[in-house]
Amino acid sequence: MSSTAALAPAPPASRWPPPYLLYLGNARDHLAAKTARGLAHWRPQWCVGQFRGSDCKTTLGLPDLDFEQAVAAGANTMIVGVANAGGVMDDEAVQHVVAALDAGMNIASGLHQRLASYPDIVAAARRNGRFLFDARQPPPLAVGNGRCRAGRRLLAVGTDCSVGKMYATLALERELQSRGVRADFRATGQTGIFIAGAGVPIDAVVADFISGAAEWISPARDDGGWDLVEGQGSLFHPSYAGVSLGLLHGAQPDALVLCHEPGRAHMRGLPHYPVPDLATCLEANLQAARLTSSDVIAVGVAVNTSNLGGADAAARACAEIEDALGLPCEDPVTMGMARIADRLQSCFAS
Amino acid sequence: MSSTAALAPAPPASRWPPPYLLYLGNARDHLAAKTARGLAHWRPQWCVGQFRGSDCKTTLGLPDLDFEQAVAAGANTMIVGVANAGGVMDDEAVQHVVAALDAGMNIASGLHQRLASYPDIVAAARRNGRFLFDARQPPPLAVGNGRCRAGRRLLAVGTDCSVGKMYATLALERELQSRGVRADFRATGQTGIFIAGAGVPIDAVVADFISGAAEWISPARDDGGWDLVEGQGSLFHPSYAGVSLGLLHGAQPDALVLCHEPGRAHMRGLPHYPVPDLATCLEANLQAARLTSSDVIAVGVAVNTSNLGGADAAARACAEIEDALGLPCEDPVTMGMARIADRLQSCFAS
Repeated sequence: MSSTAALAPAPPASRWPPPYLLYLGNARDHLAAKTARGLAHWRPQWCVGQFRGSDCKTTLGLPDLDFEQAVAAGANTMIVGVANAGGVMDDEAVQHVVAALDAGMNIASGLHQRLASYPDIVAAARRNGRFLFDARQPPPLAVGNGRCRAGRRLLAVGTDCSVGKMYATLALERELQSRGVRADFRATGQTGIFIAGAGVPIDAVVADFISGAAEWISPARDDGGWDLVEGQGSLFHPSYAGVSLGLLHGAQPDALVLCHEPGRAHMRGLPHYPVPDLATCLEANLQAARLTSSDVIAVGVAVNTSNLGGADAAARACAEIEDALGLPCEDPVTMGMARIADRLQSCFAS
Repeated sequence: MSSTAALAPAPPASRWPPPYLLYLGNARDHLAAKTARGLAHWRPQWCVGQFRGSDCKTTLGLPDLDFEQAVAAGANTMIVGVANAGGVMDDEAVQHVVAALDAGMNIASGLHQRLASYPDIVAAARRNGRFLFDARQPPPLAVGNGRCRAGRRLLAVGTDCSVGKMYATLALERELQSRGVRADFRATGQTGIFIAGAGVPIDAVVADFISGAAEWISPARDDGGWDLVEGQGSLFHPSYAGVSLGLLHGAQPDALVLCHEPGRAHMRGLPHYPVPDLATCLEANLQAARLTSSDVIAVGVAVNTSNLGGADAAARACAEIEDALGLPCEDPVTMGMARIADRLQSCFAS
């Protein structure tokens, strides 16, 4: 990790500058700390330590620091990267945030409830001249205009929710950057926003602005580099397909990577919906994408093989998908994204 | 109008009971009063009069009543059915709303700015025990679950925005009701919500809840009747297709009516996007709808022929579309929806 992590781009000038102290509070399990975990995994060079409450049941393996120690270690911002029931902070967490502000850090939160809704936190931010940032609060947006724009964009699409679209996109960013190719991950979800240092929580925007939000996070670029846009949901998930379609239109992708978890019994949260066939899913995404990007192509399939029971089964699953779709197929975590990056570079060589 | 208008269903017990006084304020033109106009056109039996400010430049042809006269005429609610610049009420409008509350009416508004954001209006509602209702404020929603539900549903889909989906759906409701068929218009936009007395402003919901909102407005029904769901946008409009897809999945339609305005040069607001071919558009909608409603069929094409220059040209345009798609095609306003209703009844005879 450390050898390639240094390639990660610095975030834009923002209100939540690294380095970070990751606040875990009294997280009950690994899942409750999913956002902090994603940040520690993909941007370890920004994370100086973790703060855990007395009842915390998980760890990121980072040094345990109190607020003064974190500031002494260089922390500029404390990330509240923990999911509590209801997305609300309890009194202890509010006191911790106030103490972190008093120690001199900015605060960034991924919770539903906005930081500015806690008077004590607002008062502490004011008296210390620090910033509060809510990752789930969308920026002001315009509706999408669909105009053809400069630059190259890749979008991760999925057979289902939670099949590894963010991991695949970040792994591809790392692979391309290691080859000297300009490539920037563009975040559309809360964890991705902390990792990228920017982005828009696309499932939280008002429905009329979905494609506009995707245009906003991947504006025209003329440096020859790639915007690698984090996908959300699936065209085949009846709860969230609207978000996926608006993102597909707004991202205006030149290339798609299809993401999939083999062996999943049904669509996430919906036992009455089967996971779509990969070829059908890919063709539906290509067809819909052509509305705003007529020459879009698929460059690979990224699979999460963690539940297949070992490297042999994973290799067989990938080989089957390669045969069926004629595209490179690999697990971003265990195999890397080299062959998909090869395909991308050969298809867009000029 | 009056012979069939009596067939319109009463709204559910609501906070904005008819009859209505329609507030036009100082509307500058017909378009500014579009919501009030739609309500007066489709539900004349609920509209006892209009209130116009001293600078009002339009009329609905209803009696001009002051607030006391309106209450004496039976009005229970004043509808603020006018679009001001910015969606905000000026001081005069606020004073008028306060006076209407003092006269004893509830207030319902289609403006962006919420009624409860004006302290004088809130105070007047409290002291008179009256209700305030904002049509653009979505109800609490759940994400869509995609579960197959009882009842029959029809959705209007479009080649573009503003091609007459609401008018087609309301005309079909009237036609079916005149035949003794149970049929209820289900509103997804502000004007439709006032006409139906219920609904959800689907373009204003948070993106994750689009299909859930469509499920909410057309719940399971077992009386053999039809829910006729107002469509929004178009799968081929790159600004709003996400809303259209979520609505398509959530509505779980048994039948589609395709709506179209012949002769439109390009997609609304987007000179760089052509209007899609009707057959392509219909097939894309059917294909996407099959995710949640596997046996969905198309039963007709509703066209807005008002810009074609007369009855002969309108008839020719309809005949061409009928030949191309093999479906009845008519203008809901000038020709009615009898042949599309015939097709619907013959396809769902059991």
